[in-house]
Amino acid sequence: MNPREKEIMGHEVYPDIRSLPETPDLVYLTIPAHRSMNVLRECAEVGVRAVVIIAAGFRDIGEPGKELEDEALELARTGGFRIIGPNCFGIYNPRNGLTLTPGYDFSKTPGDIAFISQSGSYSVHLTREAQSLGMGFSAVVSYGNASDINESDLLRYFARDPETAYIAGYLEGVSDGRDFVDALSEAAASKPVVLWKVGKVESSRRAVASHTGSLAGSSEIWQAALKQSGVIQASGIDELLYTLVALKKMGLNPGKRVLMSGGGGGLGTYGADIAEENGLELPALDPSSTAAMTEALGRVGAVVGNPLDLGTPMIPIPEFEAAMREASTNPTTDILIFDLAVNFAYPLAGPDGLERAADILAEYRRDTGNPVAVVLYSRSYDVGNVTFEELLRRIRQGLLNGGVAVFPSMTRAARAIAAINL
Amino acid sequence: MNPREKEIMGHEVYPDIRSLPETPDLVYLTIPAHRSMNVLRECAEVGVRAVVIIAAGFRDIGEPGKELEDEALELARTGGFRIIGPNCFGIYNPRNGLTLTPGYDFSKTPGDIAFISQSGSYSVHLTREAQSLGMGFSAVVSYGNASDINESDLLRYFARDPETAYIAGYLEGVSDGRDFVDALSEAAASKPVVLWKVGKVESSRRAVASHTGSLAGSSEIWQAALKQSGVIQASGIDELLYTLVALKKMGLNPGKRVLMSGGGGGLGTYGADIAEENGLELPALDPSSTAAMTEALGRVGAVVGNPLDLGTPMIPIPEFEAAMREASTNPTTDILIFDLAVNFAYPLAGPDGLERAADILAEYRRDTGNPVAVVLYSRSYDVGNVTFEELLRRIRQGLLNGGVAVFPSMTRAARAIAAINL
Repeated sequence: MNPREKEIMGHEVYPDIRSLPETPDLVYLTIPAHRSMNVLRECAEVGVRAVVIIAAGFRDIGEPGKELEDEALELARTGGFRIIGPNCFGIYNPRNGLTLTPGYDFSKTPGDIAFISQSGSYSVHLTREAQSLGMGFSAVVSYGNASDINESDLLRYFARDPETAYIAGYLEGVSDGRDFVDALSEAAASKPVVLWKVGKVESSRRAVASHTGSLAGSSEIWQAALKQSGVIQASGIDELLYTLVALKKMGLNPGKRVLMSGGGGGLGTYGADIAEENGLELPALDPSSTAAMTEALGRVGAVVGNPLDLGTPMIPIPEFEAAMREASTNPTTDILIFDLAVNFAYPLAGPDGLERAADILAEYRRDTGNPVAVVLYSRSYDVGNVTFEELLRRIRQGLLNGGVAVFPSMTRAARAIAAINL
Repeated sequence: MNPREKEIMGHEVYPDIRSLPETPDLVYLTIPAHRSMNVLRECAEVGVRAVVIIAAGFRDIGEPGKELEDEALELARTGGFRIIGPNCFGIYNPRNGLTLTPGYDFSKTPGDIAFISQSGSYSVHLTREAQSLGMGFSAVVSYGNASDINESDLLRYFARDPETAYIAGYLEGVSDGRDFVDALSEAAASKPVVLWKVGKVESSRRAVASHTGSLAGSSEIWQAALKQSGVIQASGIDELLYTLVALKKMGLNPGKRVLMSGGGGGLGTYGADIAEENGLELPALDPSSTAAMTEALGRVGAVVGNPLDLGTPMIPIPEFEAAMREASTNPTTDILIFDLAVNFAYPLAGPDGLERAADILAEYRRDTGNPVAVVLYSRSYDVGNVTFEELLRRIRQGLLNGGVAVFPSMTRAARAIAAINL
């Protein structure tokens, strides 16, 4: 629609809603806030069902904007349409091919994660990142100021949506706290819900008010409400993302007993610190596993125990295979964690050795059904040499495809595993 | 030296120490533990000055190994030589070109950081990573079991070394707690000291005992001792590394008042959360800066304040330049933080726009002398497409060369800035 043009890029253009040949189900409104009211009035007249309002300049700018937003809401109520937004990026819905967010590169293949976000940026950010880690979405909704359809509506919708297995959310504030806690408890009772709530401190609450006009609320009340509702909390986009990776590859409540393994004494020692600090446990190995591993690793300078130190960042493949076979079936272990430092192990194993090691971990993941997590990183930042980065990505993809949870750091792994044990 | 060969790769080989044509200053011993005593006896006889013992199998394996280690130490005492190790990777010293660690690719150009590490793996790991971020070393010493030359000796040495400006360390335990605290206080009084101490929990203390045979000691006592000594604490290799980045680019005690800036409401909101949670402050902008920024950013949908939300991940360069000029001189700011999401801002700015934005931040860093920190990341993991990664590395290098501190996440930035404010 455009009042001045008759044709744009070969598509016929209409001057206003009334002139359209048929009534649209959904209107995607990208004009400035102060010009929106006339169009919304037309939407009400012709019987549009829903409107996504992208523009900022409503409740997020204070009083005059709030009046505009109230007026829009009144038009929706009387005209019988619903609003997503204003001040949002709208909807990405691979199930019907509707990508109304700035996500030209988003997959057309639906997945099983629903993501609701008050931040437009983060809705796009998380989607793109999750996609490049092999995760897909049933829908992503950036809903901004939540003037009409709000977080509680969306939670209830996705709680009942059979194609959504996980719900993730980025929240700044809520309109009705009691209703939200109800919706949240209902959602969390039906499927895992991971929420990132911002606005914990004074300066960020100031930012929340000017971003989406929400009231962030007190941090203590939020903590209590989220905990009580059975929600998994995450802080930051990385934590949200890797909590989803953990959930998808290990399921809810996989257990907290980890076997911390890697090559080099420092790796296991540090891993043990991080794991226990985050509430995980490192029980001693079962005696039979200890005996078998000692047999397998006798010649490589390993220290058999939990943590399990293979001695060097990558040992010969036959010994690695034997050790991981035992590690993945040790009866006192819920999750096997292996620390794989690509550019550190490279001189010992080469690219083929590293890919083979990753394949072995994926094989045991499949064969035993027991969760396996790999901490995978390269510490190479050299300009003009992306060898390790390319290898890293191939290994990461292979592991994820094989059902192994992959994390960029031990801290990330430990926090995610702790978080999904409710 | 080799008892069986007369020549290896064109170099003449001698059967034992006694047969050498002249007395070596330093012997680098790579044979197994139980065969070391005869060679050490020879070292004592001919007057060798120092020996690096690489092999494990001493105190780290318990009683029989401890006897060997005591014997080695006795030979050193009576023979007048010093020992580094055993169970270590030895020394990297670019000042005399001596790279006795597995670091064939380590720079021959000295820098100003000394790193002492009980873990061989981490000594190599940190060196390589720091190097690819443009930081160099006066020396790196992997000292393992610390049978003779220990952490306190090394701290005292580097405290007095005029070419060392920063001391970093990875510690599992110490031999003499009182002496260590003395050495540490002396070192921290002369230059910034960053320590990563592991062995905080029961399972990691077990690992420490079998790794370097050290006593990790109680977590509480350690905390108190480190704090009292004026030491900067770090946990993990990334935190150690980025604390060094922060120190080198901003100096000790740069102040805690940050101006949190970026494009998109979510970024600033989240950044404010993270910053305050880590003890940083986000004071309101000076009125004159507010006025100037409002003028500069009036048309781009920015929210002027602290956090400063530019509206989108990258605005047009003239507006960006004007806003950052004000931001870098705002009187209530100690450190300007900018959140630069490469693959998110890419569609808006292109590679040239992003590199130009980075140049502008580096220019203001130089012109004003005020610290600038950039949070720089790409969220692209796609196999076969490293465009963003290559751009990221170019931008990172340009920023670091320009004196800007670069961090891979807001959490990393906030923690590092908080840590270097003692």
